[in-house]
Amino acid sequence: MSRNMKCIVKTSAGTGNLELLEKPIPLPGEGEVLIKVHLAAICGTDVHIKDWEEFASKRIIPPVTIGHEFCGEIISVGYGVNEKRVGELVSAESHIACHKCALCLDGKENLCINTRAIGVHIDGCFAEYITIPSENAYVCNPDISEVNNAMLEPLGVAVHAATKISLAGKTVVITGCGPIGLMAATVAKKLGSSKVICVEPNDYRAEAAYKMGADLVLNPFHFDIVQEIRQECEGIGPDVVLEFSGNAGAIKDATKYIRAGGKIIVGGLPANEISLNFTDIFYRGVNMYGLSGREMYHTWKIMTGLLNSGMDVSDCVSHILPMEEFDKAFQLIESGQALKILLRP
Amino acid sequence: MSRNMKCIVKTSAGTGNLELLEKPIPLPGEGEVLIKVHLAAICGTDVHIKDWEEFASKRIIPPVTIGHEFCGEIISVGYGVNEKRVGELVSAESHIACHKCALCLDGKENLCINTRAIGVHIDGCFAEYITIPSENAYVCNPDISEVNNAMLEPLGVAVHAATKISLAGKTVVITGCGPIGLMAATVAKKLGSSKVICVEPNDYRAEAAYKMGADLVLNPFHFDIVQEIRQECEGIGPDVVLEFSGNAGAIKDATKYIRAGGKIIVGGLPANEISLNFTDIFYRGVNMYGLSGREMYHTWKIMTGLLNSGMDVSDCVSHILPMEEFDKAFQLIESGQALKILLRP
Amino acid sequence: MSRNMKCIVKTSAGTGNLELLEKPIPLPGEGEVLIKVHLAAICGTDVHIKDWEEFASKRIIPPVTIGHEFCGEIISVGYGVNEKRVGELVSAESHIACHKCALCLDGKENLCINTRAIGVHIDGCFAEYITIPSENAYVCNPDISEVNNAMLEPLGVAVHAATKISLAGKTVVITGCGPIGLMAATVAKKLGSSKVICVEPNDYRAEAAYKMGADLVLNPFHFDIVQEIRQECEGIGPDVVLEFSGNAGAIKDATKYIRAGGKIIVGGLPANEISLNFTDIFYRGVNMYGLSGREMYHTWKIMTGLLNSGMDVSDCVSHILPMEEFDKAFQLIESGQALKILLRP
Amino acid sequence: MSRNMKCIVKTSAGTGNLELLEKPIPLPGEGEVLIKVHLAAICGTDVHIKDWEEFASKRIIPPVTIGHEFCGEIISVGYGVNEKRVGELVSAESHIACHKCALCLDGKENLCINTRAIGVHIDGCFAEYITIPSENAYVCNPDISEVNNAMLEPLGVAVHAATKISLAGKTVVITGCGPIGLMAATVAKKLGSSKVICVEPNDYRAEAAYKMGADLVLNPFHFDIVQEIRQECEGIGPDVVLEFSGNAGAIKDATKYIRAGGKIIVGGLPANEISLNFTDIFYRGVNMYGLSGREMYHTWKIMTGLLNSGMDVSDCVSHILPMEEFDKAFQLIESGQALKILLRP
Repeated sequence: MSRNMKCIVKTSAGTGNLELLEKPIPLPGEGEVLIKVHLAAICGTDVHIKDWEEFASKRIIPPVTIGHEFCGEIISVGYGVNEKRVGELVSAESHIACHKCALCLDGKENLCINTRAIGVHIDGCFAEYITIPSENAYVCNPDISEVNNAMLEPLGVAVHAATKISLAGKTVVITGCGPIGLMAATVAKKLGSSKVICVEPNDYRAEAAYKMGADLVLNPFHFDIVQEIRQECEGIGPDVVLEFSGNAGAIKDATKYIRAGGKIIVGGLPANEISLNFTDIFYRGVNMYGLSGREMYHTWKIMTGLLNSGMDVSDCVSHILPMEEFDKAFQLIESGQALKILLRP
Repeated sequence: MSRNMKCIVKTSAGTGNLELLEKPIPLPGEGEVLIKVHLAAICGTDVHIKDWEEFASKRIIPPVTIGHEFCGEIISVGYGVNEKRVGELVSAESHIACHKCALCLDGKENLCINTRAIGVHIDGCFAEYITIPSENAYVCNPDISEVNNAMLEPLGVAVHAATKISLAGKTVVITGCGPIGLMAATVAKKLGSSKVICVEPNDYRAEAAYKMGADLVLNPFHFDIVQEIRQECEGIGPDVVLEFSGNAGAIKDATKYIRAGGKIIVGGLPANEISLNFTDIFYRGVNMYGLSGREMYHTWKIMTGLLNSGMDVSDCVSHILPMEEFDKAFQLIESGQALKILLRP
Repeated sequence: MSRNMKCIVKTSAGTGNLELLEKPIPLPGEGEVLIKVHLAAICGTDVHIKDWEEFASKRIIPPVTIGHEFCGEIISVGYGVNEKRVGELVSAESHIACHKCALCLDGKENLCINTRAIGVHIDGCFAEYITIPSENAYVCNPDISEVNNAMLEPLGVAVHAATKISLAGKTVVITGCGPIGLMAATVAKKLGSSKVICVEPNDYRAEAAYKMGADLVLNPFHFDIVQEIRQECEGIGPDVVLEFSGNAGAIKDATKYIRAGGKIIVGGLPANEISLNFTDIFYRGVNMYGLSGREMYHTWKIMTGLLNSGMDVSDCVSHILPMEEFDKAFQLIESGQALKILLRP
Repeated sequence: MSRNMKCIVKTSAGTGNLELLEKPIPLPGEGEVLIKVHLAAICGTDVHIKDWEEFASKRIIPPVTIGHEFCGEIISVGYGVNEKRVGELVSAESHIACHKCALCLDGKENLCINTRAIGVHIDGCFAEYITIPSENAYVCNPDISEVNNAMLEPLGVAVHAATKISLAGKTVVITGCGPIGLMAATVAKKLGSSKVICVEPNDYRAEAAYKMGADLVLNPFHFDIVQEIRQECEGIGPDVVLEFSGNAGAIKDATKYIRAGGKIIVGGLPANEISLNFTDIFYRGVNMYGLSGREMYHTWKIMTGLLNSGMDVSDCVSHILPMEEFDKAFQLIESGQALKILLRP
């Protein structure tokens, strides 16, 4: 292989400042593997980094190669890693846990106090090659389509959300049909939800939601959402809400139409504080569950099992572009006329 | 309506002694509903009653009309029951709880110490009409096929088993493909099991298992089941076993091929004691879960949700016969060349 | 017994309007029991009713006898209730469930859509006699002190909160040391909490908190609560918060000092909306649990077990007054120089 | 420090063959720590190794230094371990997980398929010094008594058992009062059990059980245990059994007296198969839970919390002997006139 590779680098603080650069192919350090990236995916976080939003600017120190969703092949290993890993098709858990803090020791590595994230704290996967800790390279099933394997990281968020509580025979509302919300629709149906209702104002995404398994998609601009959803769910509201919009109105509505004793899984990240009526929510026995990443690696096991038995989320991909066209990809995402976009290095 | 009805009565102790008799149509007592039976189903328990096996002879005092799986329409109500229930299509929870014992008060009505069972302690549904407590008449969805609605009681056992623990993405072995085992195959797939492997020596049932969703059916006479199943499940055995055979060999095998930390749901009722190697099972962190009836009425809610979203277990029905041909029905069941048999009064 | 009894009645809408009246002793209706009240307790809800706050005015139609926390003896039973209940020492579950709505059928009677409450929708226990459904009369252990037995209803809220999740070996913060918060301190210690820290500005209550088991009581006016509590809990915050203050500041603090993956049980009812930073809370994997009443009757079973093994919450009682002095009792509560006040009819 | 140390070595296969030898003090390898052993404890497994029972002979390849329960101080660290660990007071998780097998990846490191055990697969702690992986050296609280800290490993089994399900307000039976059963009595009380009944034929141990918190100790030779325990537990049997006897009779009794829906945690390891009546057990909704080691390291966190709030299990120690007197120690244990015995190197 050549000594250099192409990669997309956040070169400096501030809006924009993403550049396609040539950098030396990295060497795997102790406990690491070197992976040839086959296919990568753009996450909302990558957009935040480009736009230098607070969430990003507080975490990242440029220059850094961005990107953390991908699949690829291990082509060499560092000191202490079994040589047999070479040749494995893998995807990456993007959270690197310390294994030493109180939360790691308590079995909650996804909440590690010292987490470092691929494409944020260390160089990411919008590159021809990437090095990550061997532990974080999760083996993929080569019989699963490459498109699915490239999206295991975000799919894991949807699976984590959908397995926080049992969805068997339950009515489920999904608020927000970005890629993770769309995947969640497929997962919720796969896990035996009785009815999956999506709330999404963007027609392009709404159409995709139907393709991915939603029984009903409601546009909040056209309906009294609280009344409509209650009515669709035995008059008393859904058992479960999977919230991926981060939208204040959507969240407040959810706290109103959820049935007594219902569960709200909070996956979206609102930009501002949201005011809640505690009596309406908690005195009705509603629970709200936080969601961070994927359980390491329990969620990966579940997800693998679901994909092995035929689950397919590739319909949430709207474009596959050469990595060089990353600018176009980001523009498409910001236009609202795209779903998940994959980049091929 | 005429004043008399036909019914199948266990007339006296001992083997056989099932007769088609004419009896007065019962009147609904306080808190009861009178139901016109549309379609009933024969359970293994009914066979035990006919054959006067220990399980039956200890519980039943003839004469009693047998049968407890059915659907039908409420045609009148007793004192204290809302008149509006007349006209409802219902099926029955067969366990009548006392609501006063320590277990009922603890929310475990399915384990009520004073349980009375329909078709055992009170007259059952192999009859044109039946009276049961209003509470036990669970409303059916008329859009679900009659065949499914007639089997909600046994389907509830399969759903109860399959929801004791999460099956999402899990490998599941089902031992014994009688009607409940067959239904469990459909339910396990519906709830996102990664792979469903059935163990069943009877070819007729094995074929049905494939129809109902099994990914693989193994005949224990043709395979080294322990080795074969381990191999089919990552080399370390399945996550879950749903045991419906009551067969000592099947159960002992299950305790061997189950993976460390795996779960065995015990639904089958072996005739004799079974000896277990505790170190092999429990020191490997395996759990064994008992199963009794259906959670009242949580399991019914889940089951309704699953059926409403398209689940169909009608393929486990091999025959629908007029109630008068009950003799032929029992013979078919005992021949092993039948699955579930329904009786139409 | 005489034909009349004394009782405290909310006679009409508006602030105040509580009167000590004579009314006929009620007769137990079908399924009901008549109880001679031995000792009753004043709840915050009773104060809301007196002050005609929104929570109360939306639910209550005067005139009604108030009060719902008490113990007493069954002295006669209505139609359909076993005569053997006469003589039982009982306390009351104050929520009367319909047993027919979707939530009751799902085993969540404490969230019943048609709940009626004692002392709100039907006449209450600030009276010499009360009639309630037989089901709601939970048998007390006469070996437990009368003071404890009179407070089983509010104690059940504390037990419900403390058993939502495991407290074994956990660090627990209790915000708000009204009677339920105080009881929660005792319960949390009894269930093996490693450290119980209370947050309470009122010195009178703070002192009681220490008596009832708190390891530390912090006055939020004297400390930077977020920093102090984090420090007291391994530098990363407590595992669990039991929130009983209903105070916006206390709640916002709790969402900040709770550790990642921690649990907040929400028992307090804030008068206004509270704005939350979702990223801080839910992206850190924190769960917030709603709390309504007591699980019927699972919580009662647990509570009985705890009391039977020596738990005692009588230190949260500051006064026991004759029922006639109810005015004084309400004044004491509003002065902040009282804890739980019991009334003896 | 001197270059040699004393240690107790299983020198060869067969019964006995334990010798006090001098060996070089080991050097900590990569990722390891070297610990000066302060106090060690003898486990039943050590007796099995001495007696060369099947459990031991299948696992161990002599010569090996035995012992795996201890506390001590880290005095040097190997490559890759933070120097700051030197000086830490630690105890050891005795199971060394591979972190790569399917069970480790699923978060069940205590069930690791490739587990190696201290004092079995690698040299143990009946020695002046020991090297173990840094990960397995769990930090102790120096304010806890040394005796407690030396027994964290077995105490962890008791805590693991007692936290498998909630004991709050529950009636609990403990079968077998060896050291772990004794500790379980203390833990069960600490976690809010309503009543703890121990079943133990040895008077010496029975007396200790009372000291450690048992409310009642029953000698199975003097009572009809099934009838007696049912009677002591509301006439319907206990909620929970913690089984640490490994005795067939005790286990069969437990399956009979446990209430419907009760839970049996299986910690004892019977030498032979035990035959069970599945209908009696599982059709009554009873669950049986396997138990292996301690959750890594969730159980350690819980245990630390319990000790920090005052739990003390030192009453289960009957003797503290110099390590040189190991022969006497083993004889004492086998005499039945000892509880836990500690060895001081």
